[in-house]
Amino acid sequence: MGGDFGPRCIIPAVARCLQQIPGLSVVLVGSPEPMTSLCQKHRLPGDRISFVHTSETILANDLPASVLRNKRDASMRVAIEQVRDGVADGCLSAGNTGALMVLSKTLLGTVDGIQRPAIMAALPVAGKFCHVLDLGANVDCSARQLFEFAVMGSEAVAELTDIQQPRVGLLNIGGEINKGSLRVREVSELLRDSRTLNYIGHIEGHELFQDRADVVVCDGFVGNVLLKASEGLASYMQAELGRALSGNFILRLLGPLLRRALKPMGERLDPDRYNGAVLLGLQGVVVKSHGNADQYALEVAIAQAVRACQSDMPQRIAERLVRCRSDLL
Amino acid sequence: MGGDFGPRCIIPAVARCLQQIPGLSVVLVGSPEPMTSLCQKHRLPGDRISFVHTSETILANDLPASVLRNKRDASMRVAIEQVRDGVADGCLSAGNTGALMVLSKTLLGTVDGIQRPAIMAALPVAGKFCHVLDLGANVDCSARQLFEFAVMGSEAVAELTDIQQPRVGLLNIGGEINKGSLRVREVSELLRDSRTLNYIGHIEGHELFQDRADVVVCDGFVGNVLLKASEGLASYMQAELGRALSGNFILRLLGPLLRRALKPMGERLDPDRYNGAVLLGLQGVVVKSHGNADQYALEVAIAQAVRACQSDMPQRIAERLVRCRSDLL
Repeated sequence: MGGDFGPRCIIPAVARCLQQIPGLSVVLVGSPEPMTSLCQKHRLPGDRISFVHTSETILANDLPASVLRNKRDASMRVAIEQVRDGVADGCLSAGNTGALMVLSKTLLGTVDGIQRPAIMAALPVAGKFCHVLDLGANVDCSARQLFEFAVMGSEAVAELTDIQQPRVGLLNIGGEINKGSLRVREVSELLRDSRTLNYIGHIEGHELFQDRADVVVCDGFVGNVLLKASEGLASYMQAELGRALSGNFILRLLGPLLRRALKPMGERLDPDRYNGAVLLGLQGVVVKSHGNADQYALEVAIAQAVRACQSDMPQRIAERLVRCRSDLL
Repeated sequence: MGGDFGPRCIIPAVARCLQQIPGLSVVLVGSPEPMTSLCQKHRLPGDRISFVHTSETILANDLPASVLRNKRDASMRVAIEQVRDGVADGCLSAGNTGALMVLSKTLLGTVDGIQRPAIMAALPVAGKFCHVLDLGANVDCSARQLFEFAVMGSEAVAELTDIQQPRVGLLNIGGEINKGSLRVREVSELLRDSRTLNYIGHIEGHELFQDRADVVVCDGFVGNVLLKASEGLASYMQAELGRALSGNFILRLLGPLLRRALKPMGERLDPDRYNGAVLLGLQGVVVKSHGNADQYALEVAIAQAVRACQSDMPQRIAERLVRCRSDLL
């Protein structure tokens, strides 16, 4: 049980989700304390929770390979083992992303035909979402991997949202087909040839915020920089806005009115509202929460994990991949 | 004479810069009309302007290699030739970036020791700027090239701003030294070993907007996506803000007051205010304006080109490179 705030945020979030999501039951994996006493305090229903106690902790700086070899009783590893062993339908973690990816891949394995799993998360656009993958699991990607990301992203968005034929775009530095790196041009051809994907072509950086695509494919380095930069810029602009509005006497008096008017915009841009990045391509459901998620953000991530479990994502991706492959031949 | 609006924006911008920058004289390169009549209309001083008439136009979709071979009388090419031949100290263009880079590199050559020129532009942060390079000239970069970008960026920012020892960061997907692609880890070591650069380590996406670094180095694919995404998100947020404030009757009445309070923020984030990306590493000064620059944005770019000429950037970069090299040995 990780993340910056640990059980004291996770347990109340679980408590609320148990109230709101019928049929949900939760396996809590971590040190006995303060987990057990927090569960009593928040009155978690005993028949819908169970505990697995662990003794080791994965730190933010731990190398994934070393975690894999040495920390066999870490809560993250044991939680994934619950999925592997069929005890849990899916795993949610707020811990070290690299370790989560390596442990998931090793313990669960990948869907047949998928070389590397990818992490998908959402950027808020015009009240909707633009789903971007990969977000950091794969730093250097081959064209084949990027094609797999497109297939996985398309299927996952169709399952997690009500969009039937998600518009799939390829992140590039120009709209023309001769633009971009060698790898991007190569995958661009594969995607154009696919008949089962709703491929709409290249997407440039600014088009991410113009509701052009539902799924945007890129390598993990670009995706990670993009997501973090977007969150950084949004926070910076909101801080500037706050300063601008509090610098004027009349506007300070109108504070409550302004806050009410700006609240929906703040909520639409709030990263907490779309917490829960799905690791796609695994033989099991694994969802990653922001490390600094608060209670509300964790509730969102739990709901996302529940959706991923209900749709049987691994099986859907495997089937879709077979269709796309035959489609390319 | 290119860009989306051509001479009808460029000529008035030149007129104002001639008024404001003593000692500036301008060589205008392009079709005779409407250039000549616009110069008369805006009363450009005859002794400080000269004309070179050209007959060809480079289009946004033209391939750089084909431009190089075929369009020998394009205004962009002829303008760069003015620099090569010592007629002009620097060249400003709002045309096709790829063509500008290839023509500049071929006609002017690179500074001794620089493999590939890079494009540097500024992101606004806390009333200051974070300079990012490369922004799209080099899609796949070696560690050596990224190191050269750090040297060029540091020198250019020291010359173009009043920052003596610019803080140089390397864009990466984690703060730890073992994070990132193979290439990024390699250049990270080179930069740590350098004693003449003020290298501050890795910069993650969100830290770009926290005034952590004055210069941030990345490959052209990442830099281009980052810059365009930032501009796209800033526009999107400003549009959302406008909608939020105009949706309330009382706030609509307070429109003028709100606009006045928000104006400084809008100006700080306005891409026009930092128009003029410098092509670094060439044996001559070449500055690129946004294609869709209006008159004000073009004035900013002209001023930037003048600063780059005054500091004798190519010579400074060559000298700095020699110091950094000996420093690494």
